Amino acid sequence: MITPLEKIRELIKKNKLDAALISSVSNIIYLTNYSGFSKEEREVYLFITKNEQYILTDGRYATAVKTLIPDFELIEISPKNSIREILKNLQAKHKLKKIGFEGHNMTHLEHKKITQALGKIFHVDLGSLRITKNPEEIYKIESACKLGDKTFDYVLKKIRLGVSEKEISNDIEFFIKGQGGDISFKPIVAFGANSTLPHHVPSNRKLKTDNIVLLDFGVKLDNYCSDMTRTIFFGKANAEFKKMYETVLKSQKLAIEKLNIPISQYPNIRASQIDKVARDYIISKGYPTIPHSLGHGIGIEVHEDPHLSPKSKDILKEGMVFSVEPGIYLPADLSTETFAKGEASARVGLPGGVRIEDLVVLEKSGPRLLTHSLRDIIEI
Amino acid sequence: MITPLEKIRELIKKNKLDAALISSVSNIIYLTNYSGFSKEEREVYLFITKNEQYILTDGRYATAVKTLIPDFELIEISPKNSIREILKNLQAKHKLKKIGFEGHNMTHLEHKKITQALGKIFHVDLGSLRITKNPEEIYKIESACKLGDKTFDYVLKKIRLGVSEKEISNDIEFFIKGQGGDISFKPIVAFGANSTLPHHVPSNRKLKTDNIVLLDFGVKLDNYCSDMTRTIFFGKANAEFKKMYETVLKSQKLAIEKLNIPISQYPNIRASQIDKVARDYIISKGYPTIPHSLGHGIGIEVHEDPHLSPKSKDILKEGMVFSVEPGIYLPADLSTETFAKGEASARVGLPGGVRIEDLVVLEKSGPRLLTHSLRDIIEI
Repeated sequence: MITPLEKIRELIKKNKLDAALISSVSNIIYLTNYSGFSKEEREVYLFITKNEQYILTDGRYATAVKTLIPDFELIEISPKNSIREILKNLQAKHKLKKIGFEGHNMTHLEHKKITQALGKIFHVDLGSLRITKNPEEIYKIESACKLGDKTFDYVLKKIRLGVSEKEISNDIEFFIKGQGGDISFKPIVAFGANSTLPHHVPSNRKLKTDNIVLLDFGVKLDNYCSDMTRTIFFGKANAEFKKMYETVLKSQKLAIEKLNIPISQYPNIRASQIDKVARDYIISKGYPTIPHSLGHGIGIEVHEDPHLSPKSKDILKEGMVFSVEPGIYLPADLSTETFAKGEASARVGLPGGVRIEDLVVLEKSGPRLLTHSLRDIIEI
Repeated sequence: MITPLEKIRELIKKNKLDAALISSVSNIIYLTNYSGFSKEEREVYLFITKNEQYILTDGRYATAVKTLIPDFELIEISPKNSIREILKNLQAKHKLKKIGFEGHNMTHLEHKKITQALGKIFHVDLGSLRITKNPEEIYKIESACKLGDKTFDYVLKKIRLGVSEKEISNDIEFFIKGQGGDISFKPIVAFGANSTLPHHVPSNRKLKTDNIVLLDFGVKLDNYCSDMTRTIFFGKANAEFKKMYETVLKSQKLAIEKLNIPISQYPNIRASQIDKVARDYIISKGYPTIPHSLGHGIGIEVHEDPHLSPKSKDILKEGMVFSVEPGIYLPADLSTETFAKGEASARVGLPGGVRIEDLVVLEKSGPRLLTHSLRDIIEI
């Protein structure tokens, strides 16, 4: 099994660099397995050469680093030993010419400071560093998914007349935290017409009979994220809802089926092709296209590479973990012209939205679902 | 009352700029009073000229922006109308020469992209934009503090033998969220020796008799933060703890007293002087110096200007709101040489830490506390 450090060295080599300065906390967690650093403040850098690896941080973290990250050499940042001085010394000591850095993570002012010390440095795209997962990572994501499924079972019992979106959102969050996990993002809970907004923020809106209930939430466990969405019906589902729901579910199943081949035989499945399968099916049934991408990679971050979207250049490979989350959203003011065909447009009885989201891992034998909550229509 | 927009225009003028591109979400909340944008992804910019103000964001936010931010003109970012195109057009339309941006917020790659469109742009330090608060802001911070005090009363009842730090941390978080608020940061709960770590992360450690319990938490309500710390004793407080506690409390009171003058008469109170009062008192009693600054401004962010620290250049003024949070931390392995004098070192019966934190607003008549929880020693 290739280790994270070996992976980053491959990227250093591939980009013809002598070393890389790593600043994004997600990559630092990946490379050190330590998650104690703040995401809000700049507290740590990794500096990786062909043969050595250093961690640069301040005295507060000295004990933790020595105990928990023994394979990195600690260099303490202090008023007497600034990050600029440290980098300058490392550059001289190892005679480094071309040093890479994360251009989408370092701010303009940080970059300015560091180039004053090092001269020109080179942006390196590390998006591919975490794009495939090893078995340990997949196990962690699966554990997060299991707690997600358990949370869904729990929250179904909380759905009742008059409850607010915020209350259900809190129920989800408190249950996950009570079980020792964390949330991977603020749960989305949307009742009725609010389900038409893919990124709705839970409000004080109270649940009424014959309302759609859309739940989109994720767990973070041992630094790894899960993500799932279910859309249920509070009341007796009408024909419009059922048709939307079945269309979304079918589009999801078709997309996953498309992946259902021994992956070794098809080394070039483009992520955009999978997006197209679900998208085309939804459009073919007379609904508007999915107003977001079909899916996203997931791991230490809830959104990471690969991206399953029409414009994605990503190629799907063994070890990738991503969401498959088609959706149909019919706002109240949607004109019938928006529809590609007339079939569904004639019977829009909503406003409402349906999204179904599961996580998939690509294994040698094909795709495997990591989320297992029921996908049939649930009426409460 | 000077509005946020007037304030930013003053800064634009002071920095001899023709316009400013604002990208930090906290400043965008401040200028628009709308907090729906993600902090993780770049979704919005403000562009402010001498007489016009624009908000640049994508279609998802169009309805919200038109309804809730009517005084900004919306320009939609889309694949056909990139941020670069938009900025180029604005630059040409208003004949702008010198455009400012937030250099500590924009990434290296974003800066590169935008300078390709605009030519050279100029970093402008907006730290002073939110440094003084208007009455409405102070009211919001005070409301958050009130919920913080209520939370402290609530959590006192949860402290019992065998409870874990994580459980108490969850109790704090769930109570605040149950009351309709949010947390302004992950609550710090530290038992026993863990109280010696100023940024301890709550663990599964269980509460034992004769343990210190340090609670540091904050509320976010209506976009504004509170922050408070109390240190209580689970059991019968011994002489060592009492001495530490009284020293911290006295140092806090002395620092606040130093501010207790009609502020109009002393237009130049340096923040570093206030830090010095508390720090010197603690050292004079034989304890090690405070290993962090005495306080920080608070508002939309939990840490913002001004800073009360030995090196701070900030001048304290009417309308500023900040924490005053002295602390003494005595780790188990602290050598007696660390102490400035022998008085306390002879009787270190701990390891343990004490911190007391309250928020203060500077008003015409002097300082006023915004947090009101009891500061006497509490034994449970």
